[in-house]
Formats: sequence, C-alpha cells, structure tokens
Amino acid sequence: MSTLNVNKEQLKKIQEMQRKAVEKMSKIKYKIAVLSGKGGVGKSFVTASLASALASKGRRVAVLDADIHGPSIPKLLGVHGYTMMAGPEGILPVTAAYGVKVVSMDFLLPSEETPLIWRGPLKTNALRELLAEVAWGDLDYLLIDLPPGTGDEPLSIAQIIPKVDGAIVVTIPSDLSRIVVKKAVMFAKKLAIPVLGIIENMSGFTCPESGKVYYILGKGAGRRIAEEMKVDFLGEIPMDPRITEANDRGVPFFVEYPESEAAKAFLKIADKIIRKIEGESSD
Amino acid sequence: MSTLNVNKEQLKKIQEMQRKAVEKMSKIKYKIAVLSGKGGVGKSFVTASLASALASKGRRVAVLDADIHGPSIPKLLGVHGYTMMAGPEGILPVTAAYGVKVVSMDFLLPSEETPLIWRGPLKTNALRELLAEVAWGDLDYLLIDLPPGTGDEPLSIAQIIPKVDGAIVVTIPSDLSRIVVKKAVMFAKKLAIPVLGIIENMSGFTCPESGKVYYILGKGAGRRIAEEMKVDFLGEIPMDPRITEANDRGVPFFVEYPESEAAKAFLKIADKIIRKIEGESSD
Repeated sequence: MSTLNVNKEQLKKIQEMQRKAVEKMSKIKYKIAVLSGKGGVGKSFVTASLASALASKGRRVAVLDADIHGPSIPKLLGVHGYTMMAGPEGILPVTAAYGVKVVSMDFLLPSEETPLIWRGPLKTNALRELLAEVAWGDLDYLLIDLPPGTGDEPLSIAQIIPKVDGAIVVTIPSDLSRIVVKKAVMFAKKLAIPVLGIIENMSGFTCPESGKVYYILGKGAGRRIAEEMKVDFLGEIPMDPRITEANDRGVPFFVEYPESEAAKAFLKIADKIIRKIEGESSD
Repeated sequence: MSTLNVNKEQLKKIQEMQRKAVEKMSKIKYKIAVLSGKGGVGKSFVTASLASALASKGRRVAVLDADIHGPSIPKLLGVHGYTMMAGPEGILPVTAAYGVKVVSMDFLLPSEETPLIWRGPLKTNALRELLAEVAWGDLDYLLIDLPPGTGDEPLSIAQIIPKVDGAIVVTIPSDLSRIVVKKAVMFAKKLAIPVLGIIENMSGFTCPESGKVYYILGKGAGRRIAEEMKVDFLGEIPMDPRITEANDRGVPFFVEYPESEAAKAFLKIADKIIRKIEGESSD
C-alpha cells in the first residue's frame, strides 16, 4: 500500500529528505513512540501529558504528532490554532507550557473542518518532508504520537522515523483489549523497537462524594497483559472528569491540574521512563 | 487502495459473488450500518445491544460483523468460539440470545491470537464471499458493524454491502469528537446512506453509593453535534461497570442486565428506530 509510482527524480528527492530527517533528528537523545492497538484509549492524551511531565522534570522535550488522520496534540497541549514559523535553520516547532516543542500536521491545515483527503503514500511523504525541514534543536526527548492501530498506516509512518529508542503501549483496563495490546507489542517488535512498557489509561474513577473507587472500564488488565507479555507495566492513569473538561477546553490537563491523582501518576511514569532510559543514576 | 490486479476470470468471479450477495440480502427488509468516526467509542457494543433490543421486541434480527480487524460481535453476544455450519442453502449464521443471527470473520479464524494479516483487497474479497454464501433467511433487520473510522478500509467494506437503508453514528460525549462525528456523517452521505441518527455511548456515570451523576467523558456532545449536523439524536447510553464486566466475560450485557438503565436506553432507541424505519403505525 505504501508503494508509489515514483520516477528517479522523485526517488532522489525522497532519499534526500530521509537523509535530512536522520541528520536533524540525530540531535535528539531519546526518541520514544507512543502507540495503541486501537483508537479511543487516550493515546494522544497520554503522550501530551507525559511530555509535560518529563519537561516539568527539567528535560528538553518535543512531541511529534504523527497521528495524521486526527492530529489532536496541539489542542491537548493548549496550542491549537498556532502556526509553525520558518527560521534560518528550518521550520520552528510551536512551544507549549514547560517549553514542550510541538510539531503537528494540525498547524498546516487551513481549518479544523478540513478532512485530510490525502491517500496513504501522500501523507507519509508530507510527514517525511516535515521531519526533514523541522529545526528541532538540541533535545532530550522526542515523543512520537503514532496513528492508532497496527495496520498499514501506522506501520508506514513508524518506518520513516529514524532510530526510535523505545515504544510505549497505551491501553484501557478492559480484558477485551488483550488481543489489540498483543498486536501492538508485536508491531513494535516488527519494527525492532524495544517496548518500554504499558500504560493503562481510564483506570478507576473515585467518586468525590463517597470516596469509593469504581472500575467502570475494567480493572487491572494493563498490568495483567504486561505480565503475560513479559514487558514492564509503567502505571495507571485514573479517570477524572477534569481530563475531558481540560481536553475539550484546549488547555493542557497536566499543567492545569498538577495536584490531581492523574497528574501525579504521570510524574511517577516519567520517573520510571527516565530511570529506564537514562539509567539508575539519573535525575 | 482497493484496486486489484485482476484478470477477466477473477473479475467474473467477483461479479458473480456480488450478484449472489445482492440476491441473498434482498430477503432482509432493513439494513442498517453502524459506524463511528474513530475507534474506542463502543460501536460494536452498541450494535450488539441494539440487535438484542430489536429482537426482544419481536423483530427477526441479524448482525454482520464487518469489523474485520477486530471482530468482537461474537464475544459481545455470547457466542465467541462457535462455528458457522454449512447447510443446503449456504453458510448458516450462529444464533445468539433472542434468536439474533451472527455472521463474523471471528468464526473463521483459527484462534484469537491469530492476527488478520490480509491486506485490504483480500479482506474485502473474503467479506464479499461471506455475504454471497450466507443463508440469512427471512429477516427484518440486519445491523452491520463497520470498521471504525472513515478511511479507505471502512469505505471499501461499506461499498460491497448492497442497498443499506440507513446509518447510525456512535460517539462519546466529548466535544473533541465533534470533528470525527462530522466526518462519519459525511462518510454516510458519500455512500448515499441516510443517517438515522447519533447515539452517545459512555454518557454519565451514576455513583451507586451517592446517587450523583458524573460526566467523566463529557456531557451532551452527542446531542449538540446532532443538532449542528441536523440529524436526529437517538439517545444516550450511561456508563456502567457491568457493561465492561459482561463484555469481558463474553455474555451479552442487554440479556444479562435487562433492568439496567443502559438496557432501558437501548429499548428506547430500538423503539425510535422502529418508528423511523417501519413508520409511525408500527409496533
């Protein structure tokens, strides 16, 4: 599906862009892909919040919104409607809270009503060009928000991103997600990307009135699946109505509600990732 | 993407299958496609529950699980692990509670660990063959659970199903879903299928302890989007931990918890659909 009818000239251009992308991204210390076996698990929310959490710990962080069908990272980080500017070094990412740099197709689309009508190969090419032209600068972490699923599209997109250091799989606590999480882990293996671990989103909801915890979408499947698959379990993010409220309002939840249990969970996960990637002596 | 290198022989076979599919499905009075702009909104759960609700009202109902990437209808209707048998008339659907007939690729897969590695065109062909060979019998309603999203795959699949009478769009209550719901409505229009309305899944959660309602994933976006798009709002399904519990256990929620608010909501929606499709004088 990712085959294109290309002539020599076009092929040369693609190779040149790929070379530039590799060069530009070589200044980024750690590149982490965030994926999910299916949509609707809050993968983009987890990516955005984790970026904020890592940045709040003094890391230089960027997010690449590679979910080209529904680029939602700008809204989740409070920079929807912004534009990427061109500088002498290339296209400049938009800067969000904590200095998180954001690159997204969303910044290139005329209005949110415009659907991306490009077919697969065109989209991967547009992303490749974006990667080649962005002036990332020196960074510690780049989080890559891949399209959901394990089909041809996320595969094509993952393949054009040079040297990814690790993958994080996001799931919900239902046992029904077992098969799709397994597919996501297999997907990372196919790309030869080590799996850093699984994050369970939409875990228990604590009723503010009664203090009781309700496991509306299931309980503990993330941890169970991680054990079965012999990968690390990174943590669980509780449900909180303020998450939807902040996301709908277009403000970054992690920045808006730092005292929430969900924000604290992201800080713990950020610590785990830092220890795993930078080594025990870090921080 | 759905183009195939076919020779004349193959083309003839495809046309023959399409003809048979049209003939077999002509005995079904009303064909309704259930779609969603994105995954993870509970489209398959809504399809399965709505099928049970329509059947509990005396309608002869079947479900076609056309979500070939993750066929989950059999588990949601309590018939996972069953096999379709061949009869003199063709392949016989599996029968679930209330006599709901189920046809799914899931019945043809050797084990749940086996990922479908077929590429797009192969999958649509397999589904076309299935449609041609199934002995549906006389039916009032066929609900078709399409793959999530509005990309090439759901489009190719929707196109091989003859004469769909209406489409139902499933969403969650977050305003972030506005764009994807609009895309789903446009998708139905592109296929010249009238939109019957929008169903909002994962609406308010009522704490059993305090009786308070929490709108964890947002409030009322389904109704607002329906008004904006000038399509009917069919109803909202409240969140309930028993939904996940039943789904994970592989028993049909609607049958297991008929007294739940969610089951009652499905009955109301079934009534609305019957009135819309069969006319005011029905039931």
